Amino acid sequence: MTTPDDTAALNERHRARMERKKAIIDAKIAAADKQIGIIIVNTGNGKGKSSSGFGMAIRALGHGMKVGIVQFIKGAMATGEEQFLRRFPEEVSFHAMGEGYTWETQNRERDIAKAAEAWEQAKRFLADPAIGMVVLDELNIALKYRYLDVENVIADMLERPSMQHVVITGRGAPPELIEIADTVTEMNVVKHAFKAGIAAQAGTEW
Amino acid sequence: MTTPDDTAALNERHRARMERKKAIIDAKIAAADKQIGIIIVNTGNGKGKSSSGFGMAIRALGHGMKVGIVQFIKGAMATGEEQFLRRFPEEVSFHAMGEGYTWETQNRERDIAKAAEAWEQAKRFLADPAIGMVVLDELNIALKYRYLDVENVIADMLERPSMQHVVITGRGAPPELIEIADTVTEMNVVKHAFKAGIAAQAGTEW
Repeated sequence: MTTPDDTAALNERHRARMERKKAIIDAKIAAADKQIGIIIVNTGNGKGKSSSGFGMAIRALGHGMKVGIVQFIKGAMATGEEQFLRRFPEEVSFHAMGEGYTWETQNRERDIAKAAEAWEQAKRFLADPAIGMVVLDELNIALKYRYLDVENVIADMLERPSMQHVVITGRGAPPELIEIADTVTEMNVVKHAFKAGIAAQAGTEW
Repeated sequence: MTTPDDTAALNERHRARMERKKAIIDAKIAAADKQIGIIIVNTGNGKGKSSSGFGMAIRALGHGMKVGIVQFIKGAMATGEEQFLRRFPEEVSFHAMGEGYTWETQNRERDIAKAAEAWEQAKRFLADPAIGMVVLDELNIALKYRYLDVENVIADMLERPSMQHVVITGRGAPPELIEIADTVTEMNVVKHAFKAGIAAQAGTEW
């Protein structure tokens, strides 16, 4: 049985532990004071790479920033994020490469031409200081298939306005990109509904 | 030097490889045909757990679903996602626990009371078939500190409308929750800007 004394002791231990934790966290926050545009990469085989990019886009919108989005590879089918974000044309510029996954087109030269066109759009966002965040969804796939040259892509990114954030998603981020990124997360599958026979459903997967 | 013949051969190999890939993917898609509300868990120490939850919320909104969001733990400071999503009160119901991280409050009994109140709100969403997606942001932290009982939380979730999706975020997801979830992703840190002295900035971190 838990007595009132036990509870009081537990509450006090909790308070003391949280006080120490706060001191550590506050010191870390004080040490990390640089304000600068960062490059974020979401990679790995798990879920959440693109959706996290769109979640950051709405964070940025909530703080009054403008957002530029280019969807590489995807785009044959209008996704939920596209349908929603196209409601705010003053705040979000949305460009979808428009040809679907490369295993759907099966046409390498066409994919390369479309990727180059999408990168031209990305470069316009990366040159525009009025855009606070650029989301380059599935860029890693376009790099993996060598539709775009990683060194050119990196050079264009590093020349962007100093306060602009860039979020890049897709499996298989190339090592050159990981090297120059500020924050890199690997999304790993623990389990996936698809393996259990559940379809890729509206709202969760697209 | 790449000759026209080399390029033609490369393009043909690409086409053949993508044709095989498409056959495999199409077969997997045909086998996964169940349409049902799923439970998604985003855990791990890396970035992207909450932002992916908000990205899925806008996917669901794009498909015309209504979304219910409860933010556990966070909430002392208005985040970008909160400021943005509160613009759509007909489509998004947003509830923030409102006391900040537990190391800020340092008061276990108050945290428990606030978590119980937030869970009552979550239960209202989980009982409402008009809500297509429920996002329980940082619920894992509330479970880790035992502010809520994991068995009760799971029981309430399993009783929800059959087509409703639930997205749960936060480090340290308990094994009982992973067991009943359909899709679980572990976000792992490869590198983080904070370690390099860059502040948690508006738009990317909150």
